[in-house]
Amino acid sequence: MKKVVTFGEIMLRLSTERHLRFIQAKSFAASYGGGEFNVSVSLANYGIDTEFVTKVPDNDIGACTVKEMRKLKVGLDHTAFGGDRLGIYFLETGAGTRSSKVVYDRAHSAFATTEPDDFDWEVILKDATWFHWSGITPAISEQAAQQCLVAIKTAHKLGLKISCDLNYRSKLWKYGKEPHEVMPELLKYSHVILGDIDTAYFMLGENKVEPNYQDEATLPNLYDVIFEYCPNLEMVATTLRYSISASHQRIGGILYNGNTIYKAAIKEVTPIVDRVGSGDAFMGGLIYGLMTYKTDLQRTIDFSAAACCLKHTISGDYNLVTKEEIEDLIKGNATGKVSR
Amino acid sequence: MKKVVTFGEIMLRLSTERHLRFIQAKSFAASYGGGEFNVSVSLANYGIDTEFVTKVPDNDIGACTVKEMRKLKVGLDHTAFGGDRLGIYFLETGAGTRSSKVVYDRAHSAFATTEPDDFDWEVILKDATWFHWSGITPAISEQAAQQCLVAIKTAHKLGLKISCDLNYRSKLWKYGKEPHEVMPELLKYSHVILGDIDTAYFMLGENKVEPNYQDEATLPNLYDVIFEYCPNLEMVATTLRYSISASHQRIGGILYNGNTIYKAAIKEVTPIVDRVGSGDAFMGGLIYGLMTYKTDLQRTIDFSAAACCLKHTISGDYNLVTKEEIEDLIKGNATGKVSR
Amino acid sequence: MKKVVTFGEIMLRLSTERHLRFIQAKSFAASYGGGEFNVSVSLANYGIDTEFVTKVPDNDIGACTVKEMRKLKVGLDHTAFGGDRLGIYFLETGAGTRSSKVVYDRAHSAFATTEPDDFDWEVILKDATWFHWSGITPAISEQAAQQCLVAIKTAHKLGLKISCDLNYRSKLWKYGKEPHEVMPELLKYSHVILGDIDTAYFMLGENKVEPNYQDEATLPNLYDVIFEYCPNLEMVATTLRYSISASHQRIGGILYNGNTIYKAAIKEVTPIVDRVGSGDAFMGGLIYGLMTYKTDLQRTIDFSAAACCLKHTISGDYNLVTKEEIEDLIKGNATGKVSR
Amino acid sequence: MKKVVTFGEIMLRLSTERHLRFIQAKSFAASYGGGEFNVSVSLANYGIDTEFVTKVPDNDIGACTVKEMRKLKVGLDHTAFGGDRLGIYFLETGAGTRSSKVVYDRAHSAFATTEPDDFDWEVILKDATWFHWSGITPAISEQAAQQCLVAIKTAHKLGLKISCDLNYRSKLWKYGKEPHEVMPELLKYSHVILGDIDTAYFMLGENKVEPNYQDEATLPNLYDVIFEYCPNLEMVATTLRYSISASHQRIGGILYNGNTIYKAAIKEVTPIVDRVGSGDAFMGGLIYGLMTYKTDLQRTIDFSAAACCLKHTISGDYNLVTKEEIEDLIKGNATGKVSR
Amino acid sequence: MKKVVTFGEIMLRLSTERHLRFIQAKSFAASYGGGEFNVSVSLANYGIDTEFVTKVPDNDIGACTVKEMRKLKVGLDHTAFGGDRLGIYFLETGAGTRSSKVVYDRAHSAFATTEPDDFDWEVILKDATWFHWSGITPAISEQAAQQCLVAIKTAHKLGLKISCDLNYRSKLWKYGKEPHEVMPELLKYSHVILGDIDTAYFMLGENKVEPNYQDEATLPNLYDVIFEYCPNLEMVATTLRYSISASHQRIGGILYNGNTIYKAAIKEVTPIVDRVGSGDAFMGGLIYGLMTYKTDLQRTIDFSAAACCLKHTISGDYNLVTKEEIEDLIKGNATGKVSR
Amino acid sequence: MKKVVTFGEIMLRLSTERHLRFIQAKSFAASYGGGEFNVSVSLANYGIDTEFVTKVPDNDIGACTVKEMRKLKVGLDHTAFGGDRLGIYFLETGAGTRSSKVVYDRAHSAFATTEPDDFDWEVILKDATWFHWSGITPAISEQAAQQCLVAIKTAHKLGLKISCDLNYRSKLWKYGKEPHEVMPELLKYSHVILGDIDTAYFMLGENKVEPNYQDEATLPNLYDVIFEYCPNLEMVATTLRYSISASHQRIGGILYNGNTIYKAAIKEVTPIVDRVGSGDAFMGGLIYGLMTYKTDLQRTIDFSAAACCLKHTISGDYNLVTKEEIEDLIKGNATGKVSR
Repeated sequence: MKKVVTFGEIMLRLSTERHLRFIQAKSFAASYGGGEFNVSVSLANYGIDTEFVTKVPDNDIGACTVKEMRKLKVGLDHTAFGGDRLGIYFLETGAGTRSSKVVYDRAHSAFATTEPDDFDWEVILKDATWFHWSGITPAISEQAAQQCLVAIKTAHKLGLKISCDLNYRSKLWKYGKEPHEVMPELLKYSHVILGDIDTAYFMLGENKVEPNYQDEATLPNLYDVIFEYCPNLEMVATTLRYSISASHQRIGGILYNGNTIYKAAIKEVTPIVDRVGSGDAFMGGLIYGLMTYKTDLQRTIDFSAAACCLKHTISGDYNLVTKEEIEDLIKGNATGKVSR
Repeated sequence: MKKVVTFGEIMLRLSTERHLRFIQAKSFAASYGGGEFNVSVSLANYGIDTEFVTKVPDNDIGACTVKEMRKLKVGLDHTAFGGDRLGIYFLETGAGTRSSKVVYDRAHSAFATTEPDDFDWEVILKDATWFHWSGITPAISEQAAQQCLVAIKTAHKLGLKISCDLNYRSKLWKYGKEPHEVMPELLKYSHVILGDIDTAYFMLGENKVEPNYQDEATLPNLYDVIFEYCPNLEMVATTLRYSISASHQRIGGILYNGNTIYKAAIKEVTPIVDRVGSGDAFMGGLIYGLMTYKTDLQRTIDFSAAACCLKHTISGDYNLVTKEEIEDLIKGNATGKVSR
Repeated sequence: MKKVVTFGEIMLRLSTERHLRFIQAKSFAASYGGGEFNVSVSLANYGIDTEFVTKVPDNDIGACTVKEMRKLKVGLDHTAFGGDRLGIYFLETGAGTRSSKVVYDRAHSAFATTEPDDFDWEVILKDATWFHWSGITPAISEQAAQQCLVAIKTAHKLGLKISCDLNYRSKLWKYGKEPHEVMPELLKYSHVILGDIDTAYFMLGENKVEPNYQDEATLPNLYDVIFEYCPNLEMVATTLRYSISASHQRIGGILYNGNTIYKAAIKEVTPIVDRVGSGDAFMGGLIYGLMTYKTDLQRTIDFSAAACCLKHTISGDYNLVTKEEIEDLIKGNATGKVSR
Repeated sequence: MKKVVTFGEIMLRLSTERHLRFIQAKSFAASYGGGEFNVSVSLANYGIDTEFVTKVPDNDIGACTVKEMRKLKVGLDHTAFGGDRLGIYFLETGAGTRSSKVVYDRAHSAFATTEPDDFDWEVILKDATWFHWSGITPAISEQAAQQCLVAIKTAHKLGLKISCDLNYRSKLWKYGKEPHEVMPELLKYSHVILGDIDTAYFMLGENKVEPNYQDEATLPNLYDVIFEYCPNLEMVATTLRYSISASHQRIGGILYNGNTIYKAAIKEVTPIVDRVGSGDAFMGGLIYGLMTYKTDLQRTIDFSAAACCLKHTISGDYNLVTKEEIEDLIKGNATGKVSR
Repeated sequence: MKKVVTFGEIMLRLSTERHLRFIQAKSFAASYGGGEFNVSVSLANYGIDTEFVTKVPDNDIGACTVKEMRKLKVGLDHTAFGGDRLGIYFLETGAGTRSSKVVYDRAHSAFATTEPDDFDWEVILKDATWFHWSGITPAISEQAAQQCLVAIKTAHKLGLKISCDLNYRSKLWKYGKEPHEVMPELLKYSHVILGDIDTAYFMLGENKVEPNYQDEATLPNLYDVIFEYCPNLEMVATTLRYSISASHQRIGGILYNGNTIYKAAIKEVTPIVDRVGSGDAFMGGLIYGLMTYKTDLQRTIDFSAAACCLKHTISGDYNLVTKEEIEDLIKGNATGKVSR
Repeated sequence: MKKVVTFGEIMLRLSTERHLRFIQAKSFAASYGGGEFNVSVSLANYGIDTEFVTKVPDNDIGACTVKEMRKLKVGLDHTAFGGDRLGIYFLETGAGTRSSKVVYDRAHSAFATTEPDDFDWEVILKDATWFHWSGITPAISEQAAQQCLVAIKTAHKLGLKISCDLNYRSKLWKYGKEPHEVMPELLKYSHVILGDIDTAYFMLGENKVEPNYQDEATLPNLYDVIFEYCPNLEMVATTLRYSISASHQRIGGILYNGNTIYKAAIKEVTPIVDRVGSGDAFMGGLIYGLMTYKTDLQRTIDFSAAACCLKHTISGDYNLVTKEEIEDLIKGNATGKVSR
């Protein structure tokens, strides 16, 4: 089987434990993650060959990310080394009525200051069958956005499937360009897009909409606008997420192929161990489903949503679950019986 | 802005972690707190100038409380040093059907053995605008009760607003006097009282009542009895607390100005990280609201109840949240979306 | 009061903390437990004299189990020492939609390789009034099954009450015999059996049934079949357990004396701190109730179910609660008010 | 073999970890210990039957001490329950040039406020062969000193061997009496005393001396003075302790039977894991040696000093080592080779 | 007493625990420190009024530094807020033959990008008596160097004493200037300089020297060259540091007033808990000594060196010891006897 | 460069922390290691391509070893899966006069019960240049010894260099054969042997000797006997290890090529963070040196001994240091200066 290449930033994540606030913390749990890396980890866990392309500093902290990729069986043959620093994000884990909080410290990172010849995309993508990127990369810096465009165009030229998770982060996009000035050019090569309809409209420069995902009949028209912008588009998916509190969500999903709406049933997710990366878990499930279940789109959206649910029970950025565990959950085995 | 002075005991809190029982604990998390100190911390977090008056032993353990006050921007210029020991309380954190458990080890503390000239109240209160005490202090010892009376009378003479949280603790009141022998004299100078109606009646020596807080129309008559005992009284507030389990409560609040009942909507609070100090968080919100929102009593009770809800998500005795976070919760942003 | 002897394996339990998966763990919490030992701990906590009979290796790890028994006031005068190793089980604690997971590493344990003269049952049981075993022991090895039979027959001869928790573990029973080839001979001496009806049928070699515990009227006929196999049987009990998720269960219980069905009301159990050993907590409550409350079978089943509920809030294998705490819960004091 | 009874206070010890200062600690390691209890633990580890007599409060914290005694196989049949609180001591562990620091919080403890009928010494001591006390008990309070005297006199009457560790603590002795007003009466029944010569002189009201333990020939005369005060005395021992730093000591010992000086060779002790209780470890070795090796006093002093050395490598108050480990060290196997 | 103002960067320090390498760490201990801040903490501990001037980002991580300053009684009235991020340094703690390792992640910090009007030095310094800076600040960035020069000139104009710790960090000085192009202009206003002679020569652009600090007679000539460059200079001091291993050093110190050499005796420092900040502890002692002991320069150098020794036993960047503890060490009380 | 294949058992290591004894441990640090795996990790760190051949159970605990190998860049293409369990060893870390203690729980492991067709050695070794085994494997079980012989013979046939670390473990060798019945046949194909002379003699069935490694002139004759038994032998090396205490060793090394003795200077190693695996670190350095420095045997033995020294500062079984760090130590940079 050919491989899936993902491209993005990997960061050091420093999180408080036991629901402490930043001001109370005497230590931070240290792990490594980032949207596109998290997708690669999901795929590696499902047995898909995957490569994560990034740039990290050539120091001990950068070396930690390399060990993490290797341990998780994520290919790292095209990692670029250099730059000043590894991006960091601080995470304060909320509970109940108090939301989790992220403080970004990712400015001036090795990835943000990527240079044109850090990556030789022809070489990187030549054995690949799928290229995945997200809306985080073009939000980081002008250079990252340009690198992303080169990658996408090369992937397109080589005939790869291209997927994008829109991933809008309001705290990024600081370098002088608005999403709608950058994203349309990047998105038009995509075959698969994951995102809320309103986010897609916002990034494409369309007027604001307030979709009602319960009212299924209204959705095709809304999704069709996205298809108009993206001539290669085959699928749009949306994670349905109803937040009751920082510790309780209801999760479902929608997949639309330009024709039919497929919905995954809503599942209760409580308590939440860690919700960061749950969207990436959905994306990982989506790519896996489309590659594996082919035309069985119902199975694909069920798999994506169940993967997303399980991620909420896993500490850290990425989804350490197996295909079998996800399929068990789809079958309804969520009752917590101890296997023994 | 002039400052709020609070008076009471600060203790070393030794709590088990991860829901362990005392018998299982190989270590205790160490922090510092006490009802009136917790109120001062809330106020300092909201930007109010505040001073906490207490007595601690002149040793390394006493010194830890001083660093805590300073760190939290709580004034400590009038701390008395001396006595044998710092009061301690041991806390075993419950879960679900198992309640939390407190073992007090506060007898013979520096504060309980306070001496008449430990505090010069004329000096302490001269720049203040508000004096806050609670029913814990007169429950600790005869000396503490007398010191409290001196403080209250001085505050009254100097024209300060005076507030009291009734805070009945059945494990205290061991020195030979019953609440109704001590509290009426102290309460009669209060402008603001926080407490359940039945607690107020009990402390004032009134007959037992069983108020139905759902039946709003019946409440004014019941509250009015308290007003009769306390000629200076302007406001009575009650925290509404429906306990489902050690991990789940429903929280609301009532504020009555002798005329109108103001109610804060009930909020679900689950899971509970730490419920100790949630009443103090309510009290802190109440003082802040009355000082800041003036006649907007609805806003005050909403602020108090929301502060109380958020406290349940914070580890430790006091409420480490900002005004902005409380106002976000009032607006309904309790959905746990990660800010990023 | 004469004592209760239990017989079974005690293992080292190595569990991940904070809901980590095995692959994420850099350390394991270490504790000691096993079904029948857990029953003895419950009984010791309720003030019943109890002895736990087992075999552990004669090394430092075996010595740890001895200290654990002594600390918990469980008699250990007949512990056998020898064999290669202490059985281990690894526990990964689930949350929400992810189940907990047990990996057994108990093959070749000291207990599994017990030899005929490890225990002198005439001596061990001579001061006892009750003998308790479970379906785990005959599942471990041929030798353990035979040792169990000797113990049961001796207990029968000496006129002890005999109880059994069926405890079916599909990951055991590896030595070449099926439950229905072994269990009927062992069960026929029992006075009290705890287990699901379908488990009992399976172990007795009966046809599969799907009992509906809600439909009370159908149960006596189903239970009566078990009575037919076991001529000494006086009581059958079943733990009712409705799993909503790994963090939420509803717990009740049924006790049938061949005549009348007694039911304990269903209680919500959430969040779950640790569900391992909750069946043993039920069993411990059952023995205590039958010994103490005699003919008051409603009180016995209420006590058993409430003990089981509380166990879910206790970390580790056994139930560190008092009689008083269980009785408080039966009275409805599950509201988590802090006692102070 | 008959048993050794020890009498004294057991405290909760709260210590900082990883050499943190009090002011830096967010948690305290919790353990339980006290001079005489520590001696009992040593003896239990060497296989001697032992009983520790004390008074603890009748609450959860007192219950923790009971579990500790039971776990360590120290008899607790005569524990008195009552009083306000368990004594506490806070320990800050030094390193190198910084000394460890103890903050006592033991005033008003259950033990300090012991009442005459807490203990029935005739019953307690009737099966015993040895009674051990230390200079800490009469330093705590008048009541404790009196209780100690009753115990000693009863032991004397019943013909027990009596040993005392002088254990001078300058931070105690606060109740109005000086050591020399109390100790001579208590010491005169002792058969064995452990202590520095200058401490003994100080407690007996003798003039100050500065013994030179290197100059062996001068010691008998100095020790003989102690013999004069104590008509029953058979042995005096002194721990030789040369402190290089908080992490490095040189340990030896002297035993004098009124006739001959026996010396244990000096051993290097570095690094020090925990030096608290190392004197108690010496004392435990001394009692064990005198009971076991009888007239082989060289072996006794070697055993005592080696036990003391090993204690410095054990975290906590008491000495968790075996006879075999001590004898290995005496033979010179201190080289740290891993046994495998 | 008037106050000491220090100026520099404060960083988040993320250190591995228990001697783990970066690659092994699953968490980092989080604390806050920086050379000049550490000096202020020392002074505050000795009772000197002190203010630390810095710039931190206006986010939760910056807020943590503010709480730290407040807790340690270091004035923070002139803290500037803004910029992208707080500087970070990662610390891997060595042992024995393995050195500790620092990875800086301080580029683009709020402090490095300080702007001219962040600080109004006339106001900041108007109540001060002493201004302290170090060679780290001009090494960070052009802006920081310029800000430093403005501060120094203002201090000079206002008649403050000015001290500098040369603190050469080879991993800094990346912005295009060499130390000798920047430092001479800054140093010429100094009254007190702390540093090795060769470092001073290097920074002043002098030829390389290899001073032999054992050969005391040769030192005045070497120091005198520094005096020639710095017309205001009154004192030069040097920390003597002989490293045996990462866990063992020998520490002494030299103070030269242009006339006489004062030496502090060499002390053994082992084991080392944390050597970071030991130079700052020396500097803090030096300022304190010069302010307090005036012409008693021997006492000043003894105090500086002993403070430096004790710092090696304290975890974290700054020196949490009292004057009394330092004086005890000078008197030779380094023997680690537990005070009790 | 062709690769080094190592063959042996990998175990789960469960160690107590902070010098706790087993009986005190409430948790165990979990890591993975084994003599031959540790050698592969060293080689991978030095940039050598390496493959570790082993057998682990096909469960979650076996999966942890696979992630560990992958993370450390140790090849695992020929791992066999199956068997009952992963071998475990428990480690109690000593200090000062108390030795570390290992309790093995490795009986019945997947590796010990290896079956003939678990490994296809022709395939495994076809790209390799070096095969390494140790005396642990033939000590585990008859099957392991036979598997080892097949591997050695295949390696010999394919012309690989073969090295052996004698690694005598008295607690193994339980299956009925003595070392001298097994080892000579295995050793005769070796080109490089690491071990003490007396261990070699013991394993070869020679008479006992007591070599004096200080007396260099006597060593060639003693080593030559080993050469006589092993016709392919080119080098013998011995780790010189003088144990002062569990926290302090002196480490050197000898390399003899049948002609000349090369000695590495003795280095002080204190404190010891973890001495397990220090022999494997020596072995890893030896293979690296022989492969890289060729005829420069002095450099090889210096590298081996310095690698061994540094291992004592690293927590866990294997040596996480770089070539550069080892070379720095050889040059004498052991002084613990912080690099910054």
